[in-house]
Amino acid sequence: MKAREIHLASRPAGWPVPENFRLVEVPVPPLEPGQVLVRNQVLSVDPYMRGRMDDVKSYMPPFQIDAPLEGAAIGEVIASESPDRAVGDVVVHNLGWRDLTVLPAARTRVLDTTAVPATAYLGPLGGPGLTAYVGLVEIAPMKPGETVFVSGAAGAVGSLAGQIAKLRGAARVVGSAGSAAKVEYVRGLGFDAAFDYHDGPVRARLREAAPEGIDVYFDNVGGEHLEAAISALHVHGRVALCGAIAHYNATEPIPAPRNLSLAIGKQLTLRGFIVTSYGHLAPAFYAEMTRWLREGRIRYDETIVDGLENTPDAFLGLLRGTNLGKMLVRV
Amino acid sequence: MKAREIHLASRPAGWPVPENFRLVEVPVPPLEPGQVLVRNQVLSVDPYMRGRMDDVKSYMPPFQIDAPLEGAAIGEVIASESPDRAVGDVVVHNLGWRDLTVLPAARTRVLDTTAVPATAYLGPLGGPGLTAYVGLVEIAPMKPGETVFVSGAAGAVGSLAGQIAKLRGAARVVGSAGSAAKVEYVRGLGFDAAFDYHDGPVRARLREAAPEGIDVYFDNVGGEHLEAAISALHVHGRVALCGAIAHYNATEPIPAPRNLSLAIGKQLTLRGFIVTSYGHLAPAFYAEMTRWLREGRIRYDETIVDGLENTPDAFLGLLRGTNLGKMLVRV
Repeated sequence: MKAREIHLASRPAGWPVPENFRLVEVPVPPLEPGQVLVRNQVLSVDPYMRGRMDDVKSYMPPFQIDAPLEGAAIGEVIASESPDRAVGDVVVHNLGWRDLTVLPAARTRVLDTTAVPATAYLGPLGGPGLTAYVGLVEIAPMKPGETVFVSGAAGAVGSLAGQIAKLRGAARVVGSAGSAAKVEYVRGLGFDAAFDYHDGPVRARLREAAPEGIDVYFDNVGGEHLEAAISALHVHGRVALCGAIAHYNATEPIPAPRNLSLAIGKQLTLRGFIVTSYGHLAPAFYAEMTRWLREGRIRYDETIVDGLENTPDAFLGLLRGTNLGKMLVRV
Repeated sequence: MKAREIHLASRPAGWPVPENFRLVEVPVPPLEPGQVLVRNQVLSVDPYMRGRMDDVKSYMPPFQIDAPLEGAAIGEVIASESPDRAVGDVVVHNLGWRDLTVLPAARTRVLDTTAVPATAYLGPLGGPGLTAYVGLVEIAPMKPGETVFVSGAAGAVGSLAGQIAKLRGAARVVGSAGSAAKVEYVRGLGFDAAFDYHDGPVRARLREAAPEGIDVYFDNVGGEHLEAAISALHVHGRVALCGAIAHYNATEPIPAPRNLSLAIGKQLTLRGFIVTSYGHLAPAFYAEMTRWLREGRIRYDETIVDGLENTPDAFLGLLRGTNLGKMLVRV
């Protein structure tokens, strides 16, 4: 039995290219006690993976050259040497970017797909949902009646952050996205205003969309977006530094924000976070998000690419912004 | 009776020049009920005043053209129409930049100079001391055993911040300053290491002074200092954004920090603050600082310029960094 895996062939310099990836066939090892064999059905590609492709010390170890990439995935247990997992169980785990994988049962979580489809666990009930929730509840705590700005608002995290802000009582939620179609999509999610950041300086577009200023900024982009938000923030404003997709493929440091000294007089708080540090908030999050999903109050969309061999393309498309909502690969 | 006041003659563009200031004689108005007449003895000049010279909305209203500047001052009550203040009381108030001033008694505070000299209320027991304390206790809370970096370490706030950090159990305190003499002064205050930021890139100097990295950065400078600190900060590091003297006279935005996206993976918190928002911490601060002063555990120095007419020079010198410790004017 052979597994097909996507390996990192070389480290990207700037924007990744298809040649940085390689499809490899490897034998599936026999199961040891406690292990399961999972046939992956859906793989997640996420912006944070770009950081792991660089050989730098960070909160997660870098991907290794000539080794498979990793990431969230959903699959079906097709063989089990663990009393805790049965053949047929649908599980989520972190060994994506391949079609078959052997791993300890303890590193899988069995999904309850009676109320929601399995892929919800890669979106609103998964990392993106918890990230959006933690950012608004813990990192840049939003109070009812406030104005919230979300960048990358058509993406997996941003689209959920904006909806969670509305559900938790934001007076006004503004989103930015990278095309007219995305802007329309974002408005359809219930954002009060949205703009295409290609339509002129972000600062001017944000001022139009939030003429009274903002209280909270959920940052997925960095760079010019962050600079614009700092200008628009009220006194005691808060920023959740969640992602910086404008920086990930830059080969030179981006000279922004150039107005951070405004944070003194405005008494701003800017806080970076990694969702895995906030597992203690997951129970409250799951309870609230499950209720919202059951009540139909959260919309989530998926952009699905077919075929394991197209996972690198899906990832490259994600970095270029070809997705609406969560970018997934159907194996 | 005439008062001499320093007025703002014009708004500085970039670095202030003597022509931005004007010495004016004005009649002293008769006292109304509840008012006192104070003869100022010592005036404080502080970096934050530069911001009030620009016509921009901020946490304090801008100084007005052809009106006297303001700032902390110590003086003696020489006439009183208030039952709460007696002639001879030594008071601190906020109508500096002049020799005589009439103001409501309620806007003065009588000083207890039995244990400390009056000027301590413009330094360790005044705004600079409370600023240093709030930054380390509330804004970028320092834990015993941590490493703290303070910029502007020879200045009024920085010299106190470093000493407070040591007194509260920091394992290592590093300071930066703008000359060899200041570096020597900072070492004499008990900082474990200090460097002159003119001696090459701040990032490299900081790495030498704190090879294991830092946990807390108390920022008085902004710009390259802040960028270097972000690089050196450990995971869960904290930054108190207190001042940005590198930016105050810049006519173009300073393109730094260019590495703020590191704050995501490092889960940093950067927080701007204005000391006047933290009056509720003043009682705890006064108790602790008074004890430290009484025990001789806090050193503070003053650079004194003589003559009201030289107040603009004192302020310009402060911006250029000619002071060690607190810059004061003896009227």
